[in-house]
Amino acid sequence: MKLLIIGGNGTIGKRVANHYKQQEHEVIIAARTNGDVNVDIADSKSIKSMFEQLGKVDAIVCIAGEAKWAPFNDLTEEDYYIGLKSKLMGQVNIVRIGQHYLNQNGSITLSTGILADDPVLKTTSAAMVNGGIHSFVQAAALEIPTGTRLNVVSLGMVEDAYEKYKDYFPGHNPVPMSKVVNAYVRSIEGKTNGNVIRYYE
Amino acid sequence: MKLLIIGGNGTIGKRVANHYKQQEHEVIIAARTNGDVNVDIADSKSIKSMFEQLGKVDAIVCIAGEAKWAPFNDLTEEDYYIGLKSKLMGQVNIVRIGQHYLNQNGSITLSTGILADDPVLKTTSAAMVNGGIHSFVQAAALEIPTGTRLNVVSLGMVEDAYEKYKDYFPGHNPVPMSKVVNAYVRSIEGKTNGNVIRYYE
Repeated sequence: MKLLIIGGNGTIGKRVANHYKQQEHEVIIAARTNGDVNVDIADSKSIKSMFEQLGKVDAIVCIAGEAKWAPFNDLTEEDYYIGLKSKLMGQVNIVRIGQHYLNQNGSITLSTGILADDPVLKTTSAAMVNGGIHSFVQAAALEIPTGTRLNVVSLGMVEDAYEKYKDYFPGHNPVPMSKVVNAYVRSIEGKTNGNVIRYYE
Repeated sequence: MKLLIIGGNGTIGKRVANHYKQQEHEVIIAARTNGDVNVDIADSKSIKSMFEQLGKVDAIVCIAGEAKWAPFNDLTEEDYYIGLKSKLMGQVNIVRIGQHYLNQNGSITLSTGILADDPVLKTTSAAMVNGGIHSFVQAAALEIPTGTRLNVVSLGMVEDAYEKYKDYFPGHNPVPMSKVVNAYVRSIEGKTNGNVIRYYE
């Protein structure tokens, strides 16, 4: 399989990338600056250019995208557009453009998180973007080319980020990294389409 | 009670407005052109100006906002921004600004729809916006001023719009208008906060 992992150097991305590299698949890492190919997902021209360089792949995985975290009353209208342009429309554009660069039976897997269903303080923008992607995936899966699939992985606080994020998520149980990798495997290798794959602990 | 109903001349809005007018409440209709007060919810300056004219109210209800319906492969990147600016950020801005114009124990009620959870063809943009608002409401309800409440009403195809929309929703059961009105009453007069009030049939 030829897999494109956008954000493949991140906390979760490198685990998914290593899993597939160990199984002798061809893994292409896309990142803002230090990938096999560079991409800024907030810019649809950059997404288009990435796919033109790569040609067709069997799986597109996006584990990237920004949204601003801040108290509700500190977030300006413009702050919301950071998330809308990057993690929301960035992922929408990966599907819009990427569907034309998939081999038959290929898949696209997006990423969100528990905030969509169970938000915490300071996450009005991040939660909104995640919830938007959940509904988008269910709608777009009805219309993507026959034989291809589209899903989203929604994770709780992952074990490898526990120290960094634990204070934001009181009482949350970290998700073991083996389950994190399996969530992506379910989307990439399973037959499910239009599924929000939730692993929240 | 002094209620502001944004979109109070629409299919659903006029039912909710009539319900409260019959009970001798003070109802102010906001609309793009023919309201008691005019507002364009896609423009946060217009929202701010509306609240400055009105002063404080007991309930803010938004049953307004646009998003473009079209096949996934016909929707351009710009088309998505119609929904992002109007039904999504319009409603976010109504909460951001409106929270400062609520009397103690006041409430804000937003509106979405079944597409968030169970989309149909041509609704990738509309579904996305609805899903985003569901998560936003849950997150923002954690941070709005103590004593005030924020909820969203998510309806299926409503009886009064059945003829217009039935072909888009094969097999869906129309929601009786009495249930539609009650969904808003639950948010306005109940004690619930951060709730997605779903009536899908």
